[in-house]
Amino acid sequence: MGTLLRGGTVVTASDTVHADVLVEDEVVTTIARHIPPSDHTVVDVSGCYLFPGGIDPHTHLDMPFGGTVTIDDFESGTRAAAFGGTTSMIDFALHTKGDTLKNAIDTWHDKASGKAAIDYGFHVMVGDMNASVMAEIPDVVEKEGVTSFKVFMAYKNNLQADDETLFRTLRLAAEVGALVQVHAENGDVIDVLVKEALEKGLTAPKYHALTRPPEAEGEATARAIRLAEIAGAPLYVVHVTCAEAANAISDARKRGLPIYGETCPQYLVCDVTDYERPGFEGAKYVMSPPLRDKWNQDVLWNKLKNMELQAFGSDHCSFHLKGQKELGIHDFSKIPNGSPTIEHRMNILYHYGVHEGRIGLNKFVALTSTNIAKLFGLFPKKGTIAVGSDADIVVWDPSVKHTISAATHHMRADNNIFEDMTVYGKPKYVFLRGHKIVDHDSYIGAVGQGQFLRCGRFYPVQF
Amino acid sequence: MGTLLRGGTVVTASDTVHADVLVEDEVVTTIARHIPPSDHTVVDVSGCYLFPGGIDPHTHLDMPFGGTVTIDDFESGTRAAAFGGTTSMIDFALHTKGDTLKNAIDTWHDKASGKAAIDYGFHVMVGDMNASVMAEIPDVVEKEGVTSFKVFMAYKNNLQADDETLFRTLRLAAEVGALVQVHAENGDVIDVLVKEALEKGLTAPKYHALTRPPEAEGEATARAIRLAEIAGAPLYVVHVTCAEAANAISDARKRGLPIYGETCPQYLVCDVTDYERPGFEGAKYVMSPPLRDKWNQDVLWNKLKNMELQAFGSDHCSFHLKGQKELGIHDFSKIPNGSPTIEHRMNILYHYGVHEGRIGLNKFVALTSTNIAKLFGLFPKKGTIAVGSDADIVVWDPSVKHTISAATHHMRADNNIFEDMTVYGKPKYVFLRGHKIVDHDSYIGAVGQGQFLRCGRFYPVQF
Amino acid sequence: MGTLLRGGTVVTASDTVHADVLVEDEVVTTIARHIPPSDHTVVDVSGCYLFPGGIDPHTHLDMPFGGTVTIDDFESGTRAAAFGGTTSMIDFALHTKGDTLKNAIDTWHDKASGKAAIDYGFHVMVGDMNASVMAEIPDVVEKEGVTSFKVFMAYKNNLQADDETLFRTLRLAAEVGALVQVHAENGDVIDVLVKEALEKGLTAPKYHALTRPPEAEGEATARAIRLAEIAGAPLYVVHVTCAEAANAISDARKRGLPIYGETCPQYLVCDVTDYERPGFEGAKYVMSPPLRDKWNQDVLWNKLKNMELQAFGSDHCSFHLKGQKELGIHDFSKIPNGSPTIEHRMNILYHYGVHEGRIGLNKFVALTSTNIAKLFGLFPKKGTIAVGSDADIVVWDPSVKHTISAATHHMRADNNIFEDMTVYGKPKYVFLRGHKIVDHDSYIGAVGQGQFLRCGRFYPVQF
Amino acid sequence: MGTLLRGGTVVTASDTVHADVLVEDEVVTTIARHIPPSDHTVVDVSGCYLFPGGIDPHTHLDMPFGGTVTIDDFESGTRAAAFGGTTSMIDFALHTKGDTLKNAIDTWHDKASGKAAIDYGFHVMVGDMNASVMAEIPDVVEKEGVTSFKVFMAYKNNLQADDETLFRTLRLAAEVGALVQVHAENGDVIDVLVKEALEKGLTAPKYHALTRPPEAEGEATARAIRLAEIAGAPLYVVHVTCAEAANAISDARKRGLPIYGETCPQYLVCDVTDYERPGFEGAKYVMSPPLRDKWNQDVLWNKLKNMELQAFGSDHCSFHLKGQKELGIHDFSKIPNGSPTIEHRMNILYHYGVHEGRIGLNKFVALTSTNIAKLFGLFPKKGTIAVGSDADIVVWDPSVKHTISAATHHMRADNNIFEDMTVYGKPKYVFLRGHKIVDHDSYIGAVGQGQFLRCGRFYPVQF
Repeated sequence: MGTLLRGGTVVTASDTVHADVLVEDEVVTTIARHIPPSDHTVVDVSGCYLFPGGIDPHTHLDMPFGGTVTIDDFESGTRAAAFGGTTSMIDFALHTKGDTLKNAIDTWHDKASGKAAIDYGFHVMVGDMNASVMAEIPDVVEKEGVTSFKVFMAYKNNLQADDETLFRTLRLAAEVGALVQVHAENGDVIDVLVKEALEKGLTAPKYHALTRPPEAEGEATARAIRLAEIAGAPLYVVHVTCAEAANAISDARKRGLPIYGETCPQYLVCDVTDYERPGFEGAKYVMSPPLRDKWNQDVLWNKLKNMELQAFGSDHCSFHLKGQKELGIHDFSKIPNGSPTIEHRMNILYHYGVHEGRIGLNKFVALTSTNIAKLFGLFPKKGTIAVGSDADIVVWDPSVKHTISAATHHMRADNNIFEDMTVYGKPKYVFLRGHKIVDHDSYIGAVGQGQFLRCGRFYPVQF
Repeated sequence: MGTLLRGGTVVTASDTVHADVLVEDEVVTTIARHIPPSDHTVVDVSGCYLFPGGIDPHTHLDMPFGGTVTIDDFESGTRAAAFGGTTSMIDFALHTKGDTLKNAIDTWHDKASGKAAIDYGFHVMVGDMNASVMAEIPDVVEKEGVTSFKVFMAYKNNLQADDETLFRTLRLAAEVGALVQVHAENGDVIDVLVKEALEKGLTAPKYHALTRPPEAEGEATARAIRLAEIAGAPLYVVHVTCAEAANAISDARKRGLPIYGETCPQYLVCDVTDYERPGFEGAKYVMSPPLRDKWNQDVLWNKLKNMELQAFGSDHCSFHLKGQKELGIHDFSKIPNGSPTIEHRMNILYHYGVHEGRIGLNKFVALTSTNIAKLFGLFPKKGTIAVGSDADIVVWDPSVKHTISAATHHMRADNNIFEDMTVYGKPKYVFLRGHKIVDHDSYIGAVGQGQFLRCGRFYPVQF
Repeated sequence: MGTLLRGGTVVTASDTVHADVLVEDEVVTTIARHIPPSDHTVVDVSGCYLFPGGIDPHTHLDMPFGGTVTIDDFESGTRAAAFGGTTSMIDFALHTKGDTLKNAIDTWHDKASGKAAIDYGFHVMVGDMNASVMAEIPDVVEKEGVTSFKVFMAYKNNLQADDETLFRTLRLAAEVGALVQVHAENGDVIDVLVKEALEKGLTAPKYHALTRPPEAEGEATARAIRLAEIAGAPLYVVHVTCAEAANAISDARKRGLPIYGETCPQYLVCDVTDYERPGFEGAKYVMSPPLRDKWNQDVLWNKLKNMELQAFGSDHCSFHLKGQKELGIHDFSKIPNGSPTIEHRMNILYHYGVHEGRIGLNKFVALTSTNIAKLFGLFPKKGTIAVGSDADIVVWDPSVKHTISAATHHMRADNNIFEDMTVYGKPKYVFLRGHKIVDHDSYIGAVGQGQFLRCGRFYPVQF
Repeated sequence: MGTLLRGGTVVTASDTVHADVLVEDEVVTTIARHIPPSDHTVVDVSGCYLFPGGIDPHTHLDMPFGGTVTIDDFESGTRAAAFGGTTSMIDFALHTKGDTLKNAIDTWHDKASGKAAIDYGFHVMVGDMNASVMAEIPDVVEKEGVTSFKVFMAYKNNLQADDETLFRTLRLAAEVGALVQVHAENGDVIDVLVKEALEKGLTAPKYHALTRPPEAEGEATARAIRLAEIAGAPLYVVHVTCAEAANAISDARKRGLPIYGETCPQYLVCDVTDYERPGFEGAKYVMSPPLRDKWNQDVLWNKLKNMELQAFGSDHCSFHLKGQKELGIHDFSKIPNGSPTIEHRMNILYHYGVHEGRIGLNKFVALTSTNIAKLFGLFPKKGTIAVGSDADIVVWDPSVKHTISAATHHMRADNNIFEDMTVYGKPKYVFLRGHKIVDHDSYIGAVGQGQFLRCGRFYPVQF
C-alpha cells in the first residue's frame, strides 16, 4: 500500500547509504536494507541517488516588477522546479507601501493556491517597514507561519529601507525568532551611478553591471552584519555574488556570529563578460546584484565547499527577452531584473560541483535542501530523507547527459542563461510527499498539488 | 532475533529523528517509525539520544614515553573509552628509529589483540621517516589498512623530522591516498627555550608551558600547511590549541585547501593557569602542546562551530601523578607528557558544547564521530547510524548530571584533569556492533571483543 | 636682526640634527652648524629639541553645541594651544541647515579674527550637504582657502548625512581637490540605542558609551571607505578610537587606497572605565565616539607606529563640568560632548609615545605636525623646520617633569581628563613665525597675532 | 673654499625645499635660502632635485658563486653604482664553513680597499653559524663596525641554517644590538623540487622559477618572523618578491613587531614570463627568489607606498650571459644566480614610482637612502641632506629621458635585465662627501676614494 523505492543510494547531508525506502501516507516510514515488496508499489531506483527534494529558498513567481510581471506564475514555475528536482520553495510575497503584511501574504496565497505543483512557503519582501508593519511581525510569525522578512538596502526611493529600519527589524526578529534577510547593495551609491551613466548616454546592458560595483555589495553586506551584531540577531544575506560580500560573511562567522549567506547558480557559471554578448542578448543576464568578474567564481566555490555560504537559491525571476527585457532596450535601468533559473538550480550545482569534483554529494544535499530547511524552520519535515520526514524524494540519475536550452526547458521564458551548457545528472523521478510528480520528461502530478508550508522560528545552533 | 532500540531519538551529523532502530548481525538493518517487536530483544531507549559510537582519532595506549609507559593499556583504556561512549579509536603505533613500519604495526597488533573492548585502527607515529620507511608506505596503505602517518615537527634530536622529510612524506601520501598528520610545534625553538629555562633553574611545571609558546605552534602549523600546499597533499593537524594555529588552518581552507584540524577537550576547558596549582599538581596538566591563555578557548569553540576544525580527539596519554609525573619533580622537561582523557572526551563536548548552547547535536556527532570516520576511511561502516553501518550506538541520557572524578573514573590514572566538573549527559547503554557493552555503570562486554579496523584511503571531497 | 636659535637639536619628520637655526622675517632662512651671532637676537636652546610647531587638525572653539557653547573661544583656546606647543590649528566652522558655506566661514572668521594667538585655518563641518551647498564647494576651495569638509554619519535628524550625500560629496571632492572628512559612527543605530536606554531609565554617563558601540564606528568607517573607493576619492576619518575602525582603514590602505585616519590623546590614555568614576565625574569623559575598552589602546599605538593612522588631533571641545556637562545630569544624551584637550595633545603623545619608547622623535613630529600640514595643503609653509618655512618652532625641554591639572592648565574648562598624569617634556619657548609667544610659563604674544591659513588642495602621493 | 650647490630643490625623507647647500670639509654645513658665493665653488643645480646619495643595502661584488665569480668587482661595481646615484652600499662579506667572521670581513676589506668609488660597509653572509662563529658576533659588532648578519633558510647542504641556528642568532642579535637578515625560502622543499625537475629532464631556465614557488618564500618568511617574535628580536627580510612574503611582514608589523623588508627593482618591473624569452635569454633573469607572476608587482608597490616594506636594494650580483650564465645551459640549477642591477636601482624606482605617480619624492628618498641608513646604523652620517651629514648628494635631473641598455651601462655584465626600458630622470652630478665623482656621463672620481663605513647598532624606534 505504500511506495517502495528499491535499490537506490540514499543521500543526506551527512550520509550516503544503499537502502530501500518505504513511503506511506506521504512520509518516509522505513529505511532498511531490504524491504519486502508486500503490496507496495515498487519503484526500481537502482543506479540512482535518492536526494531529499530540493528546496529553493529564493523565488519570485507571478510578481509585478518594473511595469511588467514575471512570466512564470505558480503553475509554470513550480512545474519547472519539479522537473529540476525541487519539491519545495519559499517564494517572496511582495509587500507594498501602505499595505499590511497580512494582506501581502493573503495575496500570495491567492496566487499560489490551486496552482502549485510543489510545496511552498513564503518570506515577505517588505516594501515599507514602518512601525505598524513592524507591529504585525509577531503575529505573522505566530499565526501565519511566515518567519523570514527581506529588507532591501538597495532600490532607492522605492523598496530601500534606512539603517534605523533595518536595525529595528533585526532587534524585533531576534526577540520573536524571525530571520531577517537582506538584499545587500548600497542603493544610494547605485542610484547616483545609474543617473550619471544615463546622463552620459551609457544605456547598454553592461552598464547595469558597471553601475552596481561589487564594493557596493561588499559595503552593504558588512553593514548589515554589523547591525545584526549590535542587535544580537541572526542574518541571512541573499544572493551573494562576490569576494567582498562573501568575505564579510566569513569574517563575521569567524567572530562566532550567526550570519548566513546564499549564492545562486548564475554567479557560479556566468560572469560579467556575458553582458557583452552581441545585440541585446546581454539583457538576459541583467539581474541584481549583477554578474561579476570571473575570478569571484572560485571564491564562491570555496565558500560553498567550506559551508561559509550555507544556502543555494535560484533567485528565479523570469522574463521574456522579447517584450519584457526589451523594455530597457534604450535604458539598461528599465530592463526587468532577473532570469529563469528555478529549473536548473540543482543541475548546475550537481554538474559543476559534484560531477566536476568541487564538492561532495552530502554537501550538495546540504546546500540545496537540508540547510535551507533548517534555516527556515522546515526541518525535519523537509530537507532530508529520514523516517517521519515528508517523502519528497528526487531519484537522480547521474549517468544522464543533457544540454540545457530554452527550446526544451519547462519555464515560460524565451531564454535561458545556461543555454548550451551540457551537464551530467537529471531527475528520473520526482516524488512530492510520496506522489510521483515527474517521470523522466513528463509531469504527471496534479495542478494545485503543492501545499502551503508554515515556516518555524529560527534556531541558530542547528548546524 | 535482532536487537530493537525503541522510542529514541536518532542523531546523525545532519539529522535528528524519532525512530526505532533494528540491529541484526552487528549492523543496523532498519530504521523506521515503528518496528514490531517480533522476536527481537527490545531495549527501551525513550528519552534518550542515539548517537553513533564515538570515534577517538587520537589515543596513546600502552606506549613507552620518557622512560615509563602510559598507564592505560588496551584493556583499561578501551574499557574507559566505552564508558564514555567511544566505540572506536585509532591508536598511534609507535615506530622507532631503525624499525620498519610493518613491525611497529605488528607490535601494536600484539598490544591490542585480545584486550580491546572497542574497535580500533592504527595510525603510525613515524619515529624516523627515512627512505626505506617511506618505501614501505604504499604497501602499508594497501595491505595493512593503515593509511595515516604522523610526522613530528617537535622533539628535537628524537622524533623530529626535518622539512625535507615532511615534504617528501606529503608528496608520497598524496600519491597513495594516505593522510599525513603533524604534531606542529617548532622543536628547534622549544629545545633552546627548554635548555635556557633549565640553565636558569626554572624547573616547575609551568615552565613547560612557557617554553612551548603558542607562536611555536602557530609557526609549525603554517609551515606544514605551506608544505602540503606545494606538495598538493591533504594534511591533518593534531591537537590544535591556540588562535595562531587554528587561524592558519582557517586561512588555508579559505584558499580551498584540504587542510583539517583536531582539537581536544583539555584545550576547551583547562587553561594555562592550571599549571600554577599548588604543589606539583600542575604536572597533571603537562601535555604538548601545553594549555594556553583562556581566551583561546573562545577561538576554538568558534572553529568547532564553523567546522574549521573538524575532529575532536582525546590525545589520551595517561600517567599516574605518583611515580610517573613525579619523574619530573625537579625538571619539568622530564614530566611525562599527557593526561587521561579518553573517557570524558564526549562528555566534555556534550556538556560545554551542546548543553550550554555553543553547538548543536548534529555538530556534536560530526565532531566526535562522523567526520573522523570520513577522514580516516572508516565511513560509513563507522561514524553514523545508518542502514548497513555497524551498530555502534550510544544511548545517551541527557538528563543525568554527574561529577567527573579520578575516584570514580574507569581509567587507571590516579588523577583527572576534569576533576570536579559537574556535567550533564551520560551513556545509559553502549552498543558495539549491536552488542551491549555498557549498561549504566557496568561494563558488560567481553575482553578482546574489539576488532581491528582497516582504514581506507583519503578522499577530500567527502565533507 | 634675525633671531638665532643656538645649540639645539632640530627634529623633522625624518631627521634629527644638531644645528643652529636663523629666523628672519618670520621664516627660517638658514640652518647651519654654526651661525655667527652678528646682530641677531640669540636664544640659547641647548639641551632642547626644536620641533616644528604643532598643528592641531581638529578643534572646536566658540562652537554652539547642545544648547550651550564650548567654553574656550579663539582667545583662550589658542593661547592654551600655544602653551602646549601648538602653533597652528584647523578649526571646524559650523555650517547649519539653510546657511551657505561662505557664511559659515565668514562667521568663523569673525570669531577668530583679532583673537587668535596661533595661526588657524578652517574645515567646514557641513550641517546640511544639499545641492546648493555642494555647488558652493568649488568656489570655497578656490577662493576661500578652505579645502576640507566634514560630513557626519552620526547625529540622526540633525547633522547626519545620508549615503547619497556622502557619496556625491566624495565624487565632487575628488574632482576639485578637496578632502572629505567623516565622523564615522552609524547614527541610525545609535539613535535607537539611546532611545531604548532612556526608555529603560538608564541615564548615567556610562550609557553614553554603551549606546555608541565600537561596531557602530567600525561599520561607518568601513562604509565611508567603500564609498570613497567607488568614488575614487581620498578620505580622512576623524577621531578613530577602536580596532574595528582602525583595521578598516588599514585594510583599505593595503588595497592601495588614499585613506587616512586621525586619533586623539584621550583614546590612548583614557578608557571606558573612566565613565564609572564616582558621582557625575564620568561626564567629563563624555565625547563622541566614546572611550573604549583598554585593549584598543595597544591597537592604536601600533597604528601610529606604523603610520596606518597619520594624524594626531585633540578634538578639543571644552565644557565646564559645572553648569555645562551638568545639563545631562539626568540624561546622558544631554551631556555636551567633548573635553578640553588642545593644550596637552603634544604632551600626551610625547610622554607616552616618545618618552616611554613606543615611537621615535621623527614619528612624533610627523604625527603632530608634518603629516597634518601635508594632508591639508599647508606644507611646507607649516609642518617642518626647513629653509623657507614659517618659523613656527617649539623649543621642547625633555627634562622637565610636570603634572597635568585643571588647577594649572590654561584652558577655561574646570576639568581636565588627564588630571594627575605626570609627564616628561614641555615647551620652554614657543615661536610663531619667529615671534616668541611662550616663554616658560608665560604667554608673551599679542592677542590676535594668529593669522588665517589658506589650505591648499589635496595631493595623495605626498607621503 | 666650500662647494656651493645653488638653486636646487633639496629632498629628504620628509621635506622638499628650495635652498642652497654649502659643503665644507666633506659635510653639509649650511642649508639656506641664499648663500653668498664668497670664495666657494659654485655649482648651478637649478631645475634639479638634490637627493641624499643612494644607499644600496644589498650588493654582491667580487663574490665567488657556483664555480665562478661575480663579474663586477669593487672597482667596476661601485663606479656603476655612482653613475646611478648610489654613494654608499653595504656589501655582503661571504663567510664560509670553517672560517671566522673576522677573516671573512678582512677578506672583504682586501677586495674593497683601494678600489671602491663609493663608501661601503659590510654585512656578513654567514656560511656556517656554529657556536664559535656566534661567539664572535659581540666582538664583530663592537670592534668591526659590522652589525648585520645574513642567515640563509635556503641552499640546502650548503649555506642553509636550521631553525635552532636562526633562533639562537636572533636571540644573540637582540642582546648585542645586531640585526639579523634572512634569505627566506624553504631550502628543503626547493631541494626536492629541483631534484625532481632535473630527474624529469626539465632543465630550461623557467624551471628555476617553477622549483622555487612563492609559497616556499611565504613559508620561510613567516617562520623567520615567528622565531624573531619569540626571540624578541628585530628582523630584516631581504629581497621580498611576492604577496605571500610581503603580507607575512605586514601581519607582523600589525602586531607591533620590529620586522622590516626589502624589495628590489627587478621584482617591480620584471616577471615570471621573462623566463620564457627565446633561446637561453631567460637565464639573464635567473636569481633567487625568482621573478613572480605579474600581479605581485601591485602588491609590492602598495607595500612600498605604505612603507610596509622599508628598504629598496639592488641585490646586484652580476654575471655574463656568455660563459657564466651559460654554465647552466643544460641544467637551470647550475645557472649562476643574480643580475646586474646596482646602476639602475634608483632609476627604476624613480621612473616607475615617482614619475608615474605611484609614490612621492620623499618616499623615494626614504626607500633608497634614509630608511637604509637608519636600519643599519649609518644615520645621520648617511641617508639625508642635513647639516652635519656627509655631503653625499645626487643632483638629479628629472627632465632627462634615456634608455637603459647593456650597450651603454657601466657595469661589466654583457646583459641588462632592464634593457630597452626608457625612463625619465638621471644624475647630472654625483657628490661623494662633497667631491664631485660623476659629471653627466663621466666618472671623475678617483679609484679607491670610497671609505669603509662602520655600521652602528640597531635601534627599532627610529622610524
